[in-house]
Amino acid sequence: MNEPQSETNDSVLSTSPSPQSSHFADRLIERLRELGHPLCVGLDPHLGRIPPLFRRGSMSPADPECADSVRDFLLALLDRLPGRVAIVKPQIAFFEQLGWRGMQVLETVVARARELDLLVLLDAKRGDIGSTAEGYARSYLEPDSPVLADAITLNPYMGLDTLEPFAERAEEYGRGLFVLVKTSNPGSGDVQDREVAGGCVYEAVASSLGELASRLEGPRTGWSSLGVVVGATYPEQAERVRELLPRALFLVPGYGAQGGSAADAVRGFTQGPRCLEGGIVNSGRAILFPDDGVTSDAVEWEKAIDGRIDEAIAELGEAVTAE
Amino acid sequence: MNEPQSETNDSVLSTSPSPQSSHFADRLIERLRELGHPLCVGLDPHLGRIPPLFRRGSMSPADPECADSVRDFLLALLDRLPGRVAIVKPQIAFFEQLGWRGMQVLETVVARARELDLLVLLDAKRGDIGSTAEGYARSYLEPDSPVLADAITLNPYMGLDTLEPFAERAEEYGRGLFVLVKTSNPGSGDVQDREVAGGCVYEAVASSLGELASRLEGPRTGWSSLGVVVGATYPEQAERVRELLPRALFLVPGYGAQGGSAADAVRGFTQGPRCLEGGIVNSGRAILFPDDGVTSDAVEWEKAIDGRIDEAIAELGEAVTAE
Repeated sequence: MNEPQSETNDSVLSTSPSPQSSHFADRLIERLRELGHPLCVGLDPHLGRIPPLFRRGSMSPADPECADSVRDFLLALLDRLPGRVAIVKPQIAFFEQLGWRGMQVLETVVARARELDLLVLLDAKRGDIGSTAEGYARSYLEPDSPVLADAITLNPYMGLDTLEPFAERAEEYGRGLFVLVKTSNPGSGDVQDREVAGGCVYEAVASSLGELASRLEGPRTGWSSLGVVVGATYPEQAERVRELLPRALFLVPGYGAQGGSAADAVRGFTQGPRCLEGGIVNSGRAILFPDDGVTSDAVEWEKAIDGRIDEAIAELGEAVTAE
Repeated sequence: MNEPQSETNDSVLSTSPSPQSSHFADRLIERLRELGHPLCVGLDPHLGRIPPLFRRGSMSPADPECADSVRDFLLALLDRLPGRVAIVKPQIAFFEQLGWRGMQVLETVVARARELDLLVLLDAKRGDIGSTAEGYARSYLEPDSPVLADAITLNPYMGLDTLEPFAERAEEYGRGLFVLVKTSNPGSGDVQDREVAGGCVYEAVASSLGELASRLEGPRTGWSSLGVVVGATYPEQAERVRELLPRALFLVPGYGAQGGSAADAVRGFTQGPRCLEGGIVNSGRAILFPDDGVTSDAVEWEKAIDGRIDEAIAELGEAVTAE
């Protein structure tokens, strides 16, 4: 907040929608209610698995053609999503490994997703002290950010003060934040399951987010733009986090490829007007790289991708309507 | 480790120095011994503080000229350092906020630092599950990474398995890792100071790194390429971490601008052959933006920067030779 931002702020005030309509959790939950399922498509372009249809040159990160290949693959994928999925989650590491060309691809892909009316959750897991957190917030959450995300994932290890610059953007521009609480990987217990007074570290982190969650509650749905990451591989912990944070959106990784079932994935959801709600369930590899997607025929590839999307939608749609 | 890397590995084997000479901690400690001080210069280009000499256009992140300005500033700064400083620490957030052009600048700046024989510690505080951590490791620690760092900062919240892809690169290519343990910011206690069995979270994290620290010990100096971040603002905790990890390098932020004294900054160091050693002390803003550096005269600017570097070197040099 050190640099003068008045010009930027003025232009925002004149063009942005009303604060209410731009509340992240409200926008997301309303779209999910229309669609009837919580699927989020993870954009994780593993270089070794880009289908033949899109491969070019050596596919080595140092080869400029590699970035073109990733871009074409993801743009074709995005075209399969409008009207079917509310939100996509690009994993920034897969773009960073391509250097500045990868960041150019990320800009292009995120801009295209927005044109297609998809929400964008940038999976960046950033976290740093004040002035640096300001830099990250400016990178991804401001109206003139080069990569303009609707929401971002954050790491809480450095403390609540490091989340504040992101919280300010969430309030001002209607962005969402998903803070790591209980992650899906096997080693997540090393720090997160350490016993502290009254529970474990992950529970302490969840509890400490309560105030921020209240501050970011949506006027229409009551859901908060302060979200948390809770892996599908730990459903009991998801129930516990839901007790601690009744209105926080969940981002649930670990469904499918990592072993979490659809029922496990929605374990922290609660009854909404139509079905269980309260978060999104990510699927990346299972959708992006189906076994029958290894084809050089564009129509066959689209069919394979559509099949996996329909499958995930059906499975998750069933999980949120199950009694 | 899913993608075949044999071509890359072959070229590395034929051009890289012997495993011994390329051990990160050995290389760093030997240079620090020659110089007699542990100063690391933080490359944190706060846009609002770039001196007039280098400012161009609106200096707004969306303006392409802004990236040129940051590049020229940092390249001029790097020219002041050879022979005086062993290592620089670019903070990636300040580059990310300029979009892909910022990453292009980071590539240029890092490449130039290497030409000048400066070690490069990329302050990125990354941390993610397996396949994503692989992506980050490929982004910054492999011989053909677009931004080729000698070392990187990492966040341990997600667990030890998430550090493993980086540890593999540290072993294979002689890189260094600095894991957040006790950070310098006021809110660092929110998670790090939670009491767990036998101590606090930060102590538990430090203890859990012991095995990795042993695995990465240098053949010549005995110092480990597994380093830890311990803020100068918490000197007693630094002593405690040193007990737990006797051979881990320290990266000490929080000296100067954030309030830690030189004596506090080296509190976790131990007696070496010439003076106290065992880590590096970062100074960013105090060196990059001296009060007398706000000049449009190149010679005056160089004098101002040189003055701040000399001051920090003298202060830290004295701190490591004090009995």
